[in-house]
Amino acid sequence: MKHTKVKDLLNSTNTIDEVSVKGWVRTFRNNQFIALNDGSVIHNIQCVVDFENTPEETLKRITTGAAVALKGSLVESQGKGQTYEIKVSHIEILGDSDPEKFPMQPKKHSLEFLRENAHLRTRTNLFGAIMRVRSVLSFAIHQYFQEKGFVYVNTPIITGSDAEGAGEMFKVTALPFDNTPRTEEGKVDYKEDFFGKETNLTVSGQLEAETYAMSLGQVYTFGPTFRAENSNTSRHLAEFWMVEPEVAFNDLDANMDLAEDFIQYVIKYAMERCEDDLKFLDERLAAEEKQKPQNERSEMGLLEKLQFVLENNFKRVSYTEAIDILKNSKPNKNKKFNYIIEEWGADLQSEHERYLVEKHFKSPVILFDYPAKIKAFYMRLNDDNKTVRAMDILFPGIGEIVGGSQREERLDVLQQKIADLGIDEEELWWYMDTRRFGTAVHSGFGLGFERLVLFVTGMSNIRDVIPFPRTPQNAEF
Amino acid sequence: MKHTKVKDLLNSTNTIDEVSVKGWVRTFRNNQFIALNDGSVIHNIQCVVDFENTPEETLKRITTGAAVALKGSLVESQGKGQTYEIKVSHIEILGDSDPEKFPMQPKKHSLEFLRENAHLRTRTNLFGAIMRVRSVLSFAIHQYFQEKGFVYVNTPIITGSDAEGAGEMFKVTALPFDNTPRTEEGKVDYKEDFFGKETNLTVSGQLEAETYAMSLGQVYTFGPTFRAENSNTSRHLAEFWMVEPEVAFNDLDANMDLAEDFIQYVIKYAMERCEDDLKFLDERLAAEEKQKPQNERSEMGLLEKLQFVLENNFKRVSYTEAIDILKNSKPNKNKKFNYIIEEWGADLQSEHERYLVEKHFKSPVILFDYPAKIKAFYMRLNDDNKTVRAMDILFPGIGEIVGGSQREERLDVLQQKIADLGIDEEELWWYMDTRRFGTAVHSGFGLGFERLVLFVTGMSNIRDVIPFPRTPQNAEF
Repeated sequence: MKHTKVKDLLNSTNTIDEVSVKGWVRTFRNNQFIALNDGSVIHNIQCVVDFENTPEETLKRITTGAAVALKGSLVESQGKGQTYEIKVSHIEILGDSDPEKFPMQPKKHSLEFLRENAHLRTRTNLFGAIMRVRSVLSFAIHQYFQEKGFVYVNTPIITGSDAEGAGEMFKVTALPFDNTPRTEEGKVDYKEDFFGKETNLTVSGQLEAETYAMSLGQVYTFGPTFRAENSNTSRHLAEFWMVEPEVAFNDLDANMDLAEDFIQYVIKYAMERCEDDLKFLDERLAAEEKQKPQNERSEMGLLEKLQFVLENNFKRVSYTEAIDILKNSKPNKNKKFNYIIEEWGADLQSEHERYLVEKHFKSPVILFDYPAKIKAFYMRLNDDNKTVRAMDILFPGIGEIVGGSQREERLDVLQQKIADLGIDEEELWWYMDTRRFGTAVHSGFGLGFERLVLFVTGMSNIRDVIPFPRTPQNAEF
Repeated sequence: MKHTKVKDLLNSTNTIDEVSVKGWVRTFRNNQFIALNDGSVIHNIQCVVDFENTPEETLKRITTGAAVALKGSLVESQGKGQTYEIKVSHIEILGDSDPEKFPMQPKKHSLEFLRENAHLRTRTNLFGAIMRVRSVLSFAIHQYFQEKGFVYVNTPIITGSDAEGAGEMFKVTALPFDNTPRTEEGKVDYKEDFFGKETNLTVSGQLEAETYAMSLGQVYTFGPTFRAENSNTSRHLAEFWMVEPEVAFNDLDANMDLAEDFIQYVIKYAMERCEDDLKFLDERLAAEEKQKPQNERSEMGLLEKLQFVLENNFKRVSYTEAIDILKNSKPNKNKKFNYIIEEWGADLQSEHERYLVEKHFKSPVILFDYPAKIKAFYMRLNDDNKTVRAMDILFPGIGEIVGGSQREERLDVLQQKIADLGIDEEELWWYMDTRRFGTAVHSGFGLGFERLVLFVTGMSNIRDVIPFPRTPQNAEF
């Protein structure tokens, strides 16, 4: 007999005479009640064992973490907390789990302990919920763009281009550290390396995606990106997934519209598809908040916060306006900020972004038209010659979740920018070609996927929303 | 006025008084007819310019590759080949394209030339079609698994585990080649590296995916994988995308059922969603085939071949049966194979796989129960103690498109295998934990995504079905 998923059994609208179910024991109470989970849903199904007619030897092996196959009938539950339960007629222990050794005991573990057991942490309700939400959000992203006719582009992970300029890169090489091939001048001879040149892990697929936007019109990437930065914070990973749409003929306003519509769509989708998991995460966060002093608690619960994002337009504020607000803000005047905002041109720190989002506007904020000096070379210069058509979307508790811009489409302006930075134009010959042959206004943005998952799950450490986090000094599993 | 996509204009069921369209000029004939493409669909829209009332200066700038914004009305076409066309009332040249310099001339270019211009090749019908089909296939993969309740898992790209054993790996490092930190014994001191240990680019997400299957039940990966192998063939890439489902409680038969159903679903989805692109690719392949001598032409056209896969079960054949067939085959007896099959235990070469699929069975074939010696350590040993529950799916023209197995779920058997291979069990402590705590039968497979795209598009070189191919001596763009 084919086994049925727990999710389908719990959703059943009638009793069933013969069912088979397989999963892992979460708890076993009173030698009688198995709480069984198979990962299909956050809830366990209660399976009632006829302990008087079950060998003692078998009962002993029903321990937390054991894999079992049960047969029986789906009946109306006599107990509280569930409509249906399984009246077990046959038990097979598939795989034992020594209760003395199994790390995932039926108690509350610290998140740090669970990170150290990242291969087992999805056996908890919390991480089952997080990873199901993550999966559904991924799908929502694909569905949003595909419905709109975007083409999914897999930009290269290994890149020979070092002009992306978004941060420190990891080297990818097949050369040995011992007896490394050297040129006559004694430099490393990358001609002898696998790709015949120096290669790194990509920090962004944007430049390549732009070439596809300028032919296929609307494209998006969704893949891993990397930063070799020694940032040991709760918001940074060395390996993370990024979504980067790029659209021909879109200006910055259209880019903001797209980003806002996109974020609202995927959050709405997750709320519809992950009701049980989000309810659990909402309750978890509420319990966490209760541990905090009153004045540190967030004003909204998780579901409330998600609903708020769906129902309210993101506040669009120019960098210049934001600087004015910050200069006149209490924490700036009282020197409570670590970095005091003194004049136009200052780069905004996380504390400033949080003030704008969490204290001043109390809403997601899109900041736009940043000083050219603090933004990347490929951003469209405004007529004022000092700001660029950049935008950052800031979210409560998360900070920057999206960074984007209208791209500089004018060949001569781009060439000047590149020359000023000392980048060799030859390195970017293919990128410049998009401006050389049929250039046009176009825009795009990058969304840090794990930051979105953080926001939607209400978790606070980015290591808890990716299966096997990569951070400085950590590449376990 | 917001511009409309070419696809929507061509699908219009009525004339429209005022339309705006943006795209790239494919051709400009008789100073009058612009064939305009915006990437939304393979077809161009014909835009008729009122050349008598358009400045000569503007007409001159309407060249192949130029980006233009046109306004006018959508009217019934007088000419052949299209129902509707645009009667242009206003032309704006957004970006020029010097016809002397633009590489994508309106003529047939060699695939090799187009590879060298991978940033511009999607401006051709061929590569527009290929990349749209690739994108739709990607989405079909996600939709298939999501509909079935699978959880999408992003397994790590940078891996500290070197026991995957699927091939040569690329080193990932932040250490310098000059003055590399060394231990007292003079070895490279990876403790000083970013992750505090030696790290590589993953060759497979399977082992990590298994840990998720053993908690969430049904999971799949879809991400980039890497091989640092010096294979300069039309079927190998150094960087390619792989789909790896992994399912708890599935045995090998269920694994074969899943793989077959999955492949049929995604091909069917692409046939429904990419009708125009696949028709174009079908015609292209037919034209290519005509160039070949009669006896080398394939018996089926592209669409016929896809339809065949949908309508016919894959032929399931044990390795042992396959060896018998091969031993008695004409090319084996006549010594036409480069590797003559002499006895049970031989590893099958591409020529043997092709013989089975293309000559003997004339159908996709699933080979199963391979000799343990030629397969990976994690595959389930059969009771005969010499074969493992492995399966390979072989496709006409492509060879191996899927490799999978039921996994060895028995801790002691796995430990013995690992010890025999000289792998340190400590390296795989987390993998062994899945067998230690609640182990169960489970199975999975890996599908090489680019090979699927090759099959569906009818292309013959794998470098033509990924945007920016990575191969030995090539990491351009």
